Amino acid sequence: MTTVLQELLGIELPIIQAPMAGVQGSALAIAVSNAGGLGSLPCAMLSVEGIRSELNNIKAHTSKPYNVNFFCHTSPVPDATRETNWRNALAPYYREFGIDAADISAGPGRAPFSADAADVLEEFKPPVVSFHFGLPSAELLARVKGWGAKILSSATTVAEAVWLERHGVDAVIAQGVEAGGHRGMFLTDDLTTQVGTLALLPQIVKAVRVPVIAAGGIADAQGVAAALALGATGVQIGTAYMCCAEATTSALHRAALKSEAARHTALTNVFTGRPARGIVNRLMRELGPISQAAPVFPLATAAIAPLRAKAEARGSGDFSPLWSGQNASGCKDVAAAQLTRELASGVR
Amino acid sequence: MTTVLQELLGIELPIIQAPMAGVQGSALAIAVSNAGGLGSLPCAMLSVEGIRSELNNIKAHTSKPYNVNFFCHTSPVPDATRETNWRNALAPYYREFGIDAADISAGPGRAPFSADAADVLEEFKPPVVSFHFGLPSAELLARVKGWGAKILSSATTVAEAVWLERHGVDAVIAQGVEAGGHRGMFLTDDLTTQVGTLALLPQIVKAVRVPVIAAGGIADAQGVAAALALGATGVQIGTAYMCCAEATTSALHRAALKSEAARHTALTNVFTGRPARGIVNRLMRELGPISQAAPVFPLATAAIAPLRAKAEARGSGDFSPLWSGQNASGCKDVAAAQLTRELASGVR
Repeated sequence: MTTVLQELLGIELPIIQAPMAGVQGSALAIAVSNAGGLGSLPCAMLSVEGIRSELNNIKAHTSKPYNVNFFCHTSPVPDATRETNWRNALAPYYREFGIDAADISAGPGRAPFSADAADVLEEFKPPVVSFHFGLPSAELLARVKGWGAKILSSATTVAEAVWLERHGVDAVIAQGVEAGGHRGMFLTDDLTTQVGTLALLPQIVKAVRVPVIAAGGIADAQGVAAALALGATGVQIGTAYMCCAEATTSALHRAALKSEAARHTALTNVFTGRPARGIVNRLMRELGPISQAAPVFPLATAAIAPLRAKAEARGSGDFSPLWSGQNASGCKDVAAAQLTRELASGVR
Repeated sequence: MTTVLQELLGIELPIIQAPMAGVQGSALAIAVSNAGGLGSLPCAMLSVEGIRSELNNIKAHTSKPYNVNFFCHTSPVPDATRETNWRNALAPYYREFGIDAADISAGPGRAPFSADAADVLEEFKPPVVSFHFGLPSAELLARVKGWGAKILSSATTVAEAVWLERHGVDAVIAQGVEAGGHRGMFLTDDLTTQVGTLALLPQIVKAVRVPVIAAGGIADAQGVAAALALGATGVQIGTAYMCCAEATTSALHRAALKSEAARHTALTNVFTGRPARGIVNRLMRELGPISQAAPVFPLATAAIAPLRAKAEARGSGDFSPLWSGQNASGCKDVAAAQLTRELASGVR
């Protein structure tokens, strides 16, 4: 049972390092893949040139399988009224930091998977491609499958898992509500539908025939063992990797992850427009954690960016997305290879 | 490790049947205790005479250890304005069902643990007493401990677990957000603090020295195995017992638990005034799931009662609290003894 995922993906250990845009690049992916797990490169915040550069780096430093991850939301139509309302909501903070709102650029910050991205991927033919927020168009998906890539995507409900299987994924990631970062939800935007890993995972295992990967709340070997006991064929772990040397997590984010503050996370849309789990901080407390004023994903980001920059320059994470799952207890200053081996000791 | 709880409570199997006021009485508790688990009698909705009668029944039908459960909220001061607002919010439904709001009685419906209840308990000296919403006063707790009862209470955060240990519980129930019925939360009313079982349990295990019992999302032997892998010394399971022959769960509640509808539960305060997890139905959808208009716990209940009665008479669960955890997949028409043995097969 626990070798199904290894055979599917060509990996030694059923440990997938979760793609985490903004806190890691190719270095972490390389370390995990070389250790026998599946390293992941998050591409949502990279330009096409950035993707090529990172993939070149991966190719240069590992011959093992790796995963390339994309968001696949529909690009939003900017709404001037909503943007104005959002900036009005942020106006007191702009005043506090001496920011001229007229200087703030707009723009999405995160791009969905595209034909241009597929062109770059095709140069490298990555063995695994994972998606968040469903799947791209049938045409784009067929291109990726064309070079033999295995396809993964996240399900936050049983219905999403069934949908993903029907649309051709090779394995489903059951993303429990404990998980850090963006909820992969795509058939609903109702947060009450979101389920804890311990409840979600076995129900998805019963509902689909493809292998199921557990994500959310897993921080150590015991968590891995628990996920496998519930029928997972592998695990995807993010938060525990964020304090590894190879991650690019900021010093203040690392400090938050190791502090008592990490005990209180929440799902918030104030940083991007879509619900994502992070450590509760000032912006989440004062405007959210869920704000009706936030523009559609990913358009909320631009107006926050200068606040984040100014606050971080003062050593404050008050306006930073401090992404974290509900169990940050696994965050340690260790090499990613060591963490991967420790996590894998929960197998069998 | 997994015998710690058995030794503490004098039971053969580390399976606690969760107390579930409104859907079970002594019959279910007796069946589980006789099967070697720990049966629980929920007392929150019983009069002092009702408690005595149920305890007499338990004494008559089992010689095994059993648990008696109480809520220990502070009795609220009724607020006429809030009650009026609540009835105004419900007015369209009263009209729909031809209910005269003037005929609706007020009153709490659920009583906290009291000296009178302790008097009755003392006649029986139950070996285990569990509390929800914290603990009763030091004086009342000392009385219960006086006859040697072991004390359990639920923690929904690490901070609550530490508090309970400091205040003298013999074991902590780590209640993950997946759990059905009322959240045991008592140090906060912020729902964003609520954590999935897979994340909460290992963090509580690390934070306290007393044994930790896992609750929330556990539906079968695999779930039990997963909880033990995470460091629990036992499990408390509710939803899976609700379709047992010995439960008093209504036919429409049983049907809902076995239907696709059970895939979507939410935390709602519309039935009692405190957040509790139930299958999403009309009242939750239209007024909640969280309503600012609901009176303080448990005063929201009285105004709902006639709607529930009228709707149920028509075969509808639109106004019933259809309590359920996020994993109802374990609900089966089996004897509670058989279910208890099946669950216990996940041990080792």
